[in-house]
Amino acid sequence: MIRVGIVGYGNVGKGAALAVTYAPDMELSAIFTRRDPASIVAPGGVPVFSFDDALSKTSDIDVMILCGGSATDLPEQGPYFAKHFNIVDSFDTHAKIPEYLASIDAVAKNKTAVIASGWDPGLFSLMRVFSEAVLPNGATYTFWGKGVSQGHSDAIRRIEGVKNAVQYTIPVDAAIEAVRSGQSPAFETREKHIRECFVVAEGTADRDFIEKTIKEMPNYFSDYDTTVHFIDESELLKSHSKMPHGGLVMRSGSTDSINSHVIEFSLTLESNPEFTASIIAAYARAAYRLAEEGKFGAKTVFDIPPAYLAEKSREEVIRDLL
Amino acid sequence: MIRVGIVGYGNVGKGAALAVTYAPDMELSAIFTRRDPASIVAPGGVPVFSFDDALSKTSDIDVMILCGGSATDLPEQGPYFAKHFNIVDSFDTHAKIPEYLASIDAVAKNKTAVIASGWDPGLFSLMRVFSEAVLPNGATYTFWGKGVSQGHSDAIRRIEGVKNAVQYTIPVDAAIEAVRSGQSPAFETREKHIRECFVVAEGTADRDFIEKTIKEMPNYFSDYDTTVHFIDESELLKSHSKMPHGGLVMRSGSTDSINSHVIEFSLTLESNPEFTASIIAAYARAAYRLAEEGKFGAKTVFDIPPAYLAEKSREEVIRDLL
Repeated sequence: MIRVGIVGYGNVGKGAALAVTYAPDMELSAIFTRRDPASIVAPGGVPVFSFDDALSKTSDIDVMILCGGSATDLPEQGPYFAKHFNIVDSFDTHAKIPEYLASIDAVAKNKTAVIASGWDPGLFSLMRVFSEAVLPNGATYTFWGKGVSQGHSDAIRRIEGVKNAVQYTIPVDAAIEAVRSGQSPAFETREKHIRECFVVAEGTADRDFIEKTIKEMPNYFSDYDTTVHFIDESELLKSHSKMPHGGLVMRSGSTDSINSHVIEFSLTLESNPEFTASIIAAYARAAYRLAEEGKFGAKTVFDIPPAYLAEKSREEVIRDLL
Repeated sequence: MIRVGIVGYGNVGKGAALAVTYAPDMELSAIFTRRDPASIVAPGGVPVFSFDDALSKTSDIDVMILCGGSATDLPEQGPYFAKHFNIVDSFDTHAKIPEYLASIDAVAKNKTAVIASGWDPGLFSLMRVFSEAVLPNGATYTFWGKGVSQGHSDAIRRIEGVKNAVQYTIPVDAAIEAVRSGQSPAFETREKHIRECFVVAEGTADRDFIEKTIKEMPNYFSDYDTTVHFIDESELLKSHSKMPHGGLVMRSGSTDSINSHVIEFSLTLESNPEFTASIIAAYARAAYRLAEEGKFGAKTVFDIPPAYLAEKSREEVIRDLL
């Protein structure tokens, strides 16, 4: 059994605990938190420790799943834990991945670290590599949604007069159909996705101001067609408290002057954090196996032979799934 | 430049020659054939040699792409070439892969061989492994088509009174929709695919006999709902001479008692042999790189880190595609 530790018990951490229970070859050994350990109700009586006690558990944990956020948690926790444990995370700030990878690789001298192992980055990245490799003469498209964007929801919540908000990113069907037709079209930002916002305003807030502030917000909304719905908080909690997400990676390309092809990978997820955590758990297995073989250092999903993810042996996946 | 040789210049071999021209880091060095080399018009003045001359070219070829069939060509050619060259093939007799893999591994002592690298086995196999690893509590479905099945077309052509025939395998939309709904349904064989046959009969042939023989043919047709259309040969050549194919790998599964997810990978191909050859070419690059690192022996798509397929360097794929 692969003994797994979880660092950080938010939505992804809870998903990781569930994912470990579904993996026949893994057991959850401990949860580590920065909160008061007594405040956490862990599944199945798993012990909960303070973050500061982690280094005393190096002989009890085969892989640590880091479930913190990419903005401030992982840049600190990644190198800290990778020095002492095999780790896996879902670092998702695309632009900072090379720098983060280097910071982990510098310390993971006798440990294996798999970074950026969710679905984007992660499975979607794999699809981009496979599809570009097999159709070099083509164009790749990534669509996200329909799903809740925490970053965009947070941006709305920071506007004065907003009590709560949920933002959905929604791919434009016409754009997806255009790619499916094999034409390799070029899109403006607003042609690929629309943004739909459900906003709870404070009682006396100026709704016109809130709507205008959202729609004109640079980077987040100004390049998109955005719809704003004001609803009351009970409706928000009732109808918009799940965390669905998903999306598509598509590539169209040609192999000669007449024949074109379309590759499409899509995810439809009822819980973004639970699915993300399930991917991280599969890469925890890979990290463990790589470490057992002495293959240390920082890895990405591009570096790992797919067989390492499977609970089955190499012989079994070749026999059953090839 | 990776110097590529092609063994066998049928549909897949021609596709491989095209694929090499689209790969900026590869050049086509030679074609090897069992036919009269003078009878082959090779692209760009590439030399064509007899099969028997291949062993004199070991220092001119970095990777051989074997384009023969799985029934009789590859079981002989695979071990023969893998002893002297790095090789890649698209061996596709699923049940015999372990045995074939072992026969190649036994001889590829100082060479790297990637077997079964088309789209099924190949890309579809990868999707089955990834999706099963990340959603262990679920069910996987593979649908093929709409596309021409050479095996089924050949089976019809062997019936007395049949002059020519093309058979399309077509997935049942209702089955795909049922999987998309996340219910993990169980299907009978006939619920997943239908078979549509376009048949040219000899002038005096008994069409009722032909249709009955097709529909009752065990393994090939008797477990399916099959439609037979008799058409004349000019219509067959005009409307059914392309080789489209494709299909879907889908997995639905749950991560707890309430949240389920659907993973879907689909291919829509205007030319099955050209797309297959494009995949083999990408794995030829991987075989070359593995051999350069001294990683010899027989490999499958499950054994190869995805970065090895990309024309870009590891640093570039991490920066651009992760």
